[in-house]
Formats: sequence, C-alpha cells, structure tokens
Amino acid sequence: MSESCEFCRIIRREAPASRVYDDEQVFAFLSNHPVNPGHTLIVPKKHYENIYEVPDEEIAHIFKVSKKIASAVKKAVKAEGVRIVQNNGEAAGQVIAHLHVHVIPMRKKQLRRHHVESREEAALQEDAENIKRFI
Amino acid sequence: MSESCEFCRIIRREAPASRVYDDEQVFAFLSNHPVNPGHTLIVPKKHYENIYEVPDEEIAHIFKVSKKIASAVKKAVKAEGVRIVQNNGEAAGQVIAHLHVHVIPMRKKQLRRHHVESREEAALQEDAENIKRFI
Repeated sequence: MSESCEFCRIIRREAPASRVYDDEQVFAFLSNHPVNPGHTLIVPKKHYENIYEVPDEEIAHIFKVSKKIASAVKKAVKAEGVRIVQNNGEAAGQVIAHLHVHVIPMRKKQLRRHHVESREEAALQEDAENIKRFI
Repeated sequence: MSESCEFCRIIRREAPASRVYDDEQVFAFLSNHPVNPGHTLIVPKKHYENIYEVPDEEIAHIFKVSKKIASAVKKAVKAEGVRIVQNNGEAAGQVIAHLHVHVIPMRKKQLRRHHVESREEAALQEDAENIKRFI
C-alpha cells in the first residue's frame, strides 16, 4: 500500500469509486475518464507500479478477472469490440503509477491505431535474437 | 487449428515468422508491421478468436508469458515504456481473427491516447450496476 497512491486510496475506500468487482486480490471500478461508458480498470490490491513487478500468480489472477470483466462489459454496454490495455511507464501512457488493466468497450468509428510500418525479414530476425537473449 | 488462419499457419510453420518464444501452449513472434522494432505478438497455439473463448488456465499462461516477453522486450530495445494490448473484434482494431496479445515498446514522443471525457458520479454508478449484472 502506498499512502499517496490514488488507486490505493480507492482500494482502502478513502476515495470514491464505482465498484464493479472485488475479491481478495483485485479490485475493479469504472474509469471516471472513460473512452466510452463501461470503461473499467482492474487493479491488484497490492501496490505494484508495473507488470514487471507482479508475481506470476497474481498476473494470472488479474487477467482471468479481466477476461470476466471484458465479457460482462461487452454484454452490459453492447460493445462492438473490447480493447484490453495495460500500459507500463509514462512513455506508454501510464498516468497512475499503480498497475491497472483497462477494459475498454469500443465502437468501430472511434478506432485509433498506432502508426505502423512494415519491417524487413532480416531486421526482424535480428530483433528476435536480441529479445531472446533476455528471456 | 484453422486451415486459413494466418497465425495458425505460422504456428504450423507453414508461414515464416521471427520466433521469440515457443512452448506447448503459446507461440510468440515479431509483428512484421511493428509500431516499433521489438513489437511482439503472443498467441495461443489453439485457435481462439477472442478472449471470451479462452479457458481461464490458458488466459493465465498467455499473460504470464506476455509479462516475460514485456520484460525482455523492454531490455532488448531499451524501451521507455511498454504497452500491452489485446483487441477483441474489428471494432477494437483486431485484424487477424486469432487471439493475440501485442507487446509494444514505446517512446514518449509517439504516444497516442484515446479521447476521454469525464463522466459524472451518478452515471458511473449506473454503469457499474449494469456491468455487475453480467459478472
């Protein structure tokens, strides 16, 4: 638990939130700045800043719950699609430094994509070798 | 397995891919249209279209592996941040109809965000009640 963390305060019920799900390990509530109504955040009750810090067993539970929430949100708001996003670091768009999974109901017309470019086979092979060194 | 699915063909080694990780249940390889070099896709070897179809135990494994890959990609390309994205349905940006998790290394200057608006407390409470009916 962190004294000043906005999500820890929600988990301790010191700050308000629209609760969607709650168990021993995780808490889920609605974003108050939703991409669309129904945009839900799933957070571990323990304070972890990012995914690298979370033990595997908690990762497993957080994403099982995220699946359950994704399915419920899809039905509840009749979403055309559901985007699941988990950002690590400011450069990835993380605003609150307490790990959270976004479950975002989407409509087709709103879609924003990252800019992508094709990359050549040889460069991809090099990238793969580079990553495998760290696994 | 699906005959025509592009990712099933990669898993069966009928189509080329720059492999990053491989185990009994999942396969990870580089996107050939990366947001940035190192952009990796994690897919279950069984053909599931979206997250709603995947059994909980496989969800757990897919995301444990995604965490491992996120950490490796971050080190390998010295990413400032890492975005983990899993899109369900065309409206959410899913292009290939075989469930996949994106691990995307990010640089701060590239950040694109969804447009958000604040939502009032009463509306949030209603949204939460609506979603809870489906959990």
